[in-house]
Amino acid sequence: MNSSVLKKKIPSDICVLDATLRDGGLCNDFRFTDDFVRALYRTNLACGVAYMEFGYRASDREFSRDDFGKWKFCDEEALRDIVGENNTALKIAVMADVGRCDYINGFLPKSESVIDMIRVACYSHQLDEAITMIEHFHDLGYETTCNVMAVSTTPKQELEELLPRLCQSPADIIYLVDSYGAFHASDVIALTHKYSDCAQPYGKKIGMHAHNNQNLAFSNTVAALDTGASFLDATMMGMGRGAGNCSMEQLLGYLDPSLLSLSEMLDFLRDYMIPLKDSGIQWGYDLPYLITGLLNTHPRAAIKFTQTDQTDCRAFLESLQKAN
Amino acid sequence: MNSSVLKKKIPSDICVLDATLRDGGLCNDFRFTDDFVRALYRTNLACGVAYMEFGYRASDREFSRDDFGKWKFCDEEALRDIVGENNTALKIAVMADVGRCDYINGFLPKSESVIDMIRVACYSHQLDEAITMIEHFHDLGYETTCNVMAVSTTPKQELEELLPRLCQSPADIIYLVDSYGAFHASDVIALTHKYSDCAQPYGKKIGMHAHNNQNLAFSNTVAALDTGASFLDATMMGMGRGAGNCSMEQLLGYLDPSLLSLSEMLDFLRDYMIPLKDSGIQWGYDLPYLITGLLNTHPRAAIKFTQTDQTDCRAFLESLQKAN
Repeated sequence: MNSSVLKKKIPSDICVLDATLRDGGLCNDFRFTDDFVRALYRTNLACGVAYMEFGYRASDREFSRDDFGKWKFCDEEALRDIVGENNTALKIAVMADVGRCDYINGFLPKSESVIDMIRVACYSHQLDEAITMIEHFHDLGYETTCNVMAVSTTPKQELEELLPRLCQSPADIIYLVDSYGAFHASDVIALTHKYSDCAQPYGKKIGMHAHNNQNLAFSNTVAALDTGASFLDATMMGMGRGAGNCSMEQLLGYLDPSLLSLSEMLDFLRDYMIPLKDSGIQWGYDLPYLITGLLNTHPRAAIKFTQTDQTDCRAFLESLQKAN
Repeated sequence: MNSSVLKKKIPSDICVLDATLRDGGLCNDFRFTDDFVRALYRTNLACGVAYMEFGYRASDREFSRDDFGKWKFCDEEALRDIVGENNTALKIAVMADVGRCDYINGFLPKSESVIDMIRVACYSHQLDEAITMIEHFHDLGYETTCNVMAVSTTPKQELEELLPRLCQSPADIIYLVDSYGAFHASDVIALTHKYSDCAQPYGKKIGMHAHNNQNLAFSNTVAALDTGASFLDATMMGMGRGAGNCSMEQLLGYLDPSLLSLSEMLDFLRDYMIPLKDSGIQWGYDLPYLITGLLNTHPRAAIKFTQTDQTDCRAFLESLQKAN
């Protein structure tokens, strides 16, 4: 958690988490080459990133290994192939999705694993199971987060019942997650205050995971930071499902005014990220995502619109409005 | 100034100004077809945009008509070819650059012109001449604005001397201009307060003109709006020099939650803006602009980098840091 030992100037109380393999993996079914993953690991280390999320620890009873690359499953051996014993300041995270993960049998005790943090992702109706998983992972010795997704559609009353339960769980970090890229800065500020007010008495920290549907992922991440969030998710060139995430280059450029961290990552962008994009993997802000963001709805229709090279955004908007 | 008569839901005290031809014209030497300009005019009208800036009223003693399209000069006849008598709610603006405009001979009295507003652009060291021009245009009967450029590099003391002089001029609107796309929301909020505190006793309004070097043009425009700015510049798909401007689609999507205004512009984007971009005209956020934005410097080096298909952003960053 202490990135200051890396001699970069990211404030030592701020933890940047690189989610490129996990959220970006949703764009290419987690099929990254080992060369890519090693270069990303080295780059995160050089930049003073605090955590690198390698992917999901999904259950192979739920998902076929033929359909996905290995970072959908994040086996211990796959991780160790990249990081060895990981005797570095960069911590290793994986995500465990409620209902898609064999949490009882799928994890070693922390003392036998190279993983440092398990991030539990759930929808608000899955909170019971999420808390059970967090308790289990906590008992195994891991740092844990809870990432309740799509809270832009969670009724206010439900959120106010949910937050205290989360804060009483052993989760170390409570994440504000803007799954639909629907928030503006004023929403982020109000919700970060709400999360913080609930979490601080329990000594928990607040994280921010933004999506870029309205091209606001970076500015919303800064709004959360200014309101007290200290765990900030980003991905290289914003790679992530649909419109993508807060881009690492914007975030590090902001957090480290010496621009040393930014400088350290630019070769990785040139050598790995731009070729990935040029190869046809799609992500990033575009009009259909703006529309689903404005409508506070899942981007799946926009992903389909983009992948099928449709162009009639007006008909797209009006059909979604009718369906809503 | 009253867009509410257009039956759209942009708040009636907010004026959106479309600067596509003016700032976008810097990308294609103002060579827009009449068909494009007519369609843009119709679209702005349908969307409830308050002002459409047609370009510069540059002097043809300073610039050759062979080198630029007609919107560099915005002759009265060229305007009337598009708008006739402009018996609409959409007002017509042109920009007059200090030192590049024959302001004494170049403008008819307002009663004989279809122009409603003249926006005077200057650097801080040109304030004397800007005020002389504003007084002249005001005497001719026009609405006027003053757009002091590149204030991200203006020393604090100089800005504090400059603002009261501006506020005592006849300018109706004082614009905060982020020429280098260097501001974050906290900067915009602090400066909008500073501008407002000075301007409000004189009954003047505050405008915001953002650039997208750090992909913050829209979020910074919202930050200015939330802090009291009421004139908001935007361009279609963000078209403008280098990284471009606040995009009209984001701004209208935000200001009009019915999304009627957004709906009205989507066909224009499909039929005119996307083909313009596909034709090779370059603008928009990219890594080299992020770098010049972070360094608070003119984007000209980034424009050259982009136009010459360079790829070594690390060397670009480090060379600019050495030069600074």
